[in-house]
Amino acid sequence: MKIFIVFAHPEENSFGASLLQRSIEQLRLDGHEVQVSDLYRMGFNPVATASDFQERRFPEQLQYDREQKYAAKGEGGFSSDIQEELDKLFWCDHLILQFPLWWFSVPAIMKGWIDRVFVNGAVYGAGLRWENGGLKGRSASLSITTGCLPEMVQPNGVLGDLRVILWHLHAGVFHYSGLDVYEPFVAYSLRYQDADERLRVHDAYAMYLGEIEGRSKVDFHDSSEFENWMLRDGVTSRTVGQLACEYKEFQRDK
Amino acid sequence: MKIFIVFAHPEENSFGASLLQRSIEQLRLDGHEVQVSDLYRMGFNPVATASDFQERRFPEQLQYDREQKYAAKGEGGFSSDIQEELDKLFWCDHLILQFPLWWFSVPAIMKGWIDRVFVNGAVYGAGLRWENGGLKGRSASLSITTGCLPEMVQPNGVLGDLRVILWHLHAGVFHYSGLDVYEPFVAYSLRYQDADERLRVHDAYAMYLGEIEGRSKVDFHDSSEFENWMLRDGVTSRTVGQLACEYKEFQRDK
Repeated sequence: MKIFIVFAHPEENSFGASLLQRSIEQLRLDGHEVQVSDLYRMGFNPVATASDFQERRFPEQLQYDREQKYAAKGEGGFSSDIQEELDKLFWCDHLILQFPLWWFSVPAIMKGWIDRVFVNGAVYGAGLRWENGGLKGRSASLSITTGCLPEMVQPNGVLGDLRVILWHLHAGVFHYSGLDVYEPFVAYSLRYQDADERLRVHDAYAMYLGEIEGRSKVDFHDSSEFENWMLRDGVTSRTVGQLACEYKEFQRDK
Repeated sequence: MKIFIVFAHPEENSFGASLLQRSIEQLRLDGHEVQVSDLYRMGFNPVATASDFQERRFPEQLQYDREQKYAAKGEGGFSSDIQEELDKLFWCDHLILQFPLWWFSVPAIMKGWIDRVFVNGAVYGAGLRWENGGLKGRSASLSITTGCLPEMVQPNGVLGDLRVILWHLHAGVFHYSGLDVYEPFVAYSLRYQDADERLRVHDAYAMYLGEIEGRSKVDFHDSSEFENWMLRDGVTSRTVGQLACEYKEFQRDK
């Protein structure tokens, strides 16, 4: 497979950076091609602005997603830093986002990579969503380092179920764009681990990556299971996002 | 009340910017004091780096949260842009984050404001979490503009329940830091609204803000309801994060 790893960590000698190195070695040993965007080392700009477009369709007022659509059509085009990332994204079969979990999400530099590179008109948009998303036929996974304990993100854990914490990334970013989503790799409570334990995490990640094509996928409903944007009567929820046990009468907020 | 609004939008003539202006006028009319951080206009830097600290406790390797804790103690201190935001944060009674929903979350520039300003040792940390968080006694709310339809974020909506989408912000950022969390204000499907409809959204937001002190709060469990980081036997979940209907046998991932 062609694997694209996007990595974010401010410290180049972090545990996360060592995990990244080990993963690159392992994936190449396993016969995969690998490209990496190490966002901090690249000095990636995470702030979406008008400068992201070579030419503007609506120069009087920035409508970011509409300019993305215009640029994606080949009119004008994107700034070179975005285009380079788009090229890697559409090159890959599998996308890995590796990051330390900050505030239940990705660091800002990685959020900006998503904001700027997951462009309307190519990655998502009208007719390009969910199972028909622009990245259809590809897959993705999250690789997370965190100081929290696994107990804390169990279904009844103090931080909430990990699947709920990650819904905005799994459903909101990956699934929305057509990517198949594999269960994440999570390295817990690193602060308290010694060198041997850290090596065991390296090995566990290598094993995870070795099995990546056979891993279980996060389940999402197909668009056909919805009617007027809501689950059809009789369809039982299979996700943590569509709440199976707590439906309320729908009231339009007008 | 003292109200601190943090706002992020790349276009200074956006609908969001007009909503911000209206909210400032309304809040002042209602007798509140208001401070605003308009992150795009400030050119706020969202990328957490070693430069965020005047002096390093561990200069050989950046451990971002430990340097935050050191700086929060008054040793060295923070870069001036962080300190200015911290001053506003600890000045306010109520924090509003106003933003367009990008990828089920805040734009990168606002994620970076959270990453850099919600510092270990003052906002959160050992002994400073949840109902004892560093922002205890204050409250917060999200003010969101989005192109999506309200149906899409109903409990059985195609994007998932809005409360699940926002769990990483409500529980992960606000509640974790000790803030009381008010139900969000959401302006839906703006693209399709005419000037009259937009004015109605302005009015609805003004009304929301006028009632802010009496609004209903998002419910979270108290720390005392957990044991070993998991809900105690017999406690029924009251949140979308602690899944009431789908507990699994806990298995430590070792």
